[in-house]
Amino acid sequence: MPTYRLDVAYDGTDFHGYARQDNVTTVQGALEAALFRRTGVVDTAVAGRTDGGVHAEGQVVSFVLNDPVDEVLLQRSLNSQLGPAIAVNAVVAVPDDFHARFSATGRGYRYRIWNGRVHDPLVWRTSWHVPEPLDLSAMDAAVGCLVGTHDFVSFCRKAPGRATAREVREARWVRDGDLVELAVSANAFCHHMIRSIVSASVEIGLGRLEPEAMGEILDARDRTRATGTAPARGLTLVSVTYP
Amino acid sequence: MPTYRLDVAYDGTDFHGYARQDNVTTVQGALEAALFRRTGVVDTAVAGRTDGGVHAEGQVVSFVLNDPVDEVLLQRSLNSQLGPAIAVNAVVAVPDDFHARFSATGRGYRYRIWNGRVHDPLVWRTSWHVPEPLDLSAMDAAVGCLVGTHDFVSFCRKAPGRATAREVREARWVRDGDLVELAVSANAFCHHMIRSIVSASVEIGLGRLEPEAMGEILDARDRTRATGTAPARGLTLVSVTYP
Repeated sequence: MPTYRLDVAYDGTDFHGYARQDNVTTVQGALEAALFRRTGVVDTAVAGRTDGGVHAEGQVVSFVLNDPVDEVLLQRSLNSQLGPAIAVNAVVAVPDDFHARFSATGRGYRYRIWNGRVHDPLVWRTSWHVPEPLDLSAMDAAVGCLVGTHDFVSFCRKAPGRATAREVREARWVRDGDLVELAVSANAFCHHMIRSIVSASVEIGLGRLEPEAMGEILDARDRTRATGTAPARGLTLVSVTYP
Repeated sequence: MPTYRLDVAYDGTDFHGYARQDNVTTVQGALEAALFRRTGVVDTAVAGRTDGGVHAEGQVVSFVLNDPVDEVLLQRSLNSQLGPAIAVNAVVAVPDDFHARFSATGRGYRYRIWNGRVHDPLVWRTSWHVPEPLDLSAMDAAVGCLVGTHDFVSFCRKAPGRATAREVREARWVRDGDLVELAVSANAFCHHMIRSIVSASVEIGLGRLEPEAMGEILDARDRTRATGTAPARGLTLVSVTYP
């Protein structure tokens, strides 16, 4: 059966997350309504179910149709229906065994902090405002211990019985003026994992915790040892990797 | 009497422009409501009265008080009252003869076009989406003729009796990937001037007009010769210059 891949970007500010829910506006709900009108499809798979307020530059969605469609026309139809907050950057026919979630071998995210003294209205929707000075070298040193395969249960929202081992491939904090960014990639992330790592990083950057605290929280394998969860709006799904 | 300068940034998307109006949300209305609560001041001057949807990184506002205030406390109070769409980046005591509008000797703006095939949700609020390829060298060549002191009446919204001579000091189109930007500065701009220049530039960039058309529109001194007005959301007031 013809299988298709969509590359999707969105401003998550005004959505109640990616995943479809009754009675609230979600990215999946909007996408599927537009797809249904054109193709009759009712269900789609997604690489990363982002939370409310989280953005995407390179989200990947897949679905199966009974009959092939013209990709160019479908893309045009979706973009004309979806409005400015969602963009379909590509529609591509893929092999039948492609699944946006199960075929994915990696996800890359960016977390952005605005570290100016006053918030910036033009980056507010995509950043967390932390006005106090942040020690980036301490933050960058701290996240180094996360690279590799570990049990990240300390950084995961409680979900008893769900596996929490992940392979983190990159975790780096960099500064560009008042903008401070974490680039992080892994085979996959558990729920709240990046925002929990950001929260601990900021505690370290403010000098409230030593850089070694990151490894101690990780090794404790205890959710109660984590420092909290950074705001959703700083987080963006940048890219998804397939073999 | 103590005179103060505010440096203000805003996301203009959700405001009906800078200038105070009854029954709609404006930047001036929000600023003055916050100022009044703290200082009792009821009137302010502004360097550039931006239209609805236009943004600012470096807007300048001034006002006069009967008694001096603590600048740090005033800035903190304003920012805590104003919410994320407006930021007061500085509050400074200035000489009595300072006036945000009449003392200003220059204004710098940026107009941003998203020239990707599909719109980008994360830059949509601050850019005009033009999906067709734009010839930037033609656009940049075209705006060169605007530099200098000219009567810009062809690019100004009709306002009989108002002077339309302005001194343009810089006008350059540059490309950074799919982002295309006009940097333009002048002693001052008349209403709709930059958005009219952008509209003509895009006609030239699309090949519908020759680069020489910009100078012909300018020389015609006739508003009906202009090509239209580009959308407000691409425009940002970047900086204001004082002696």
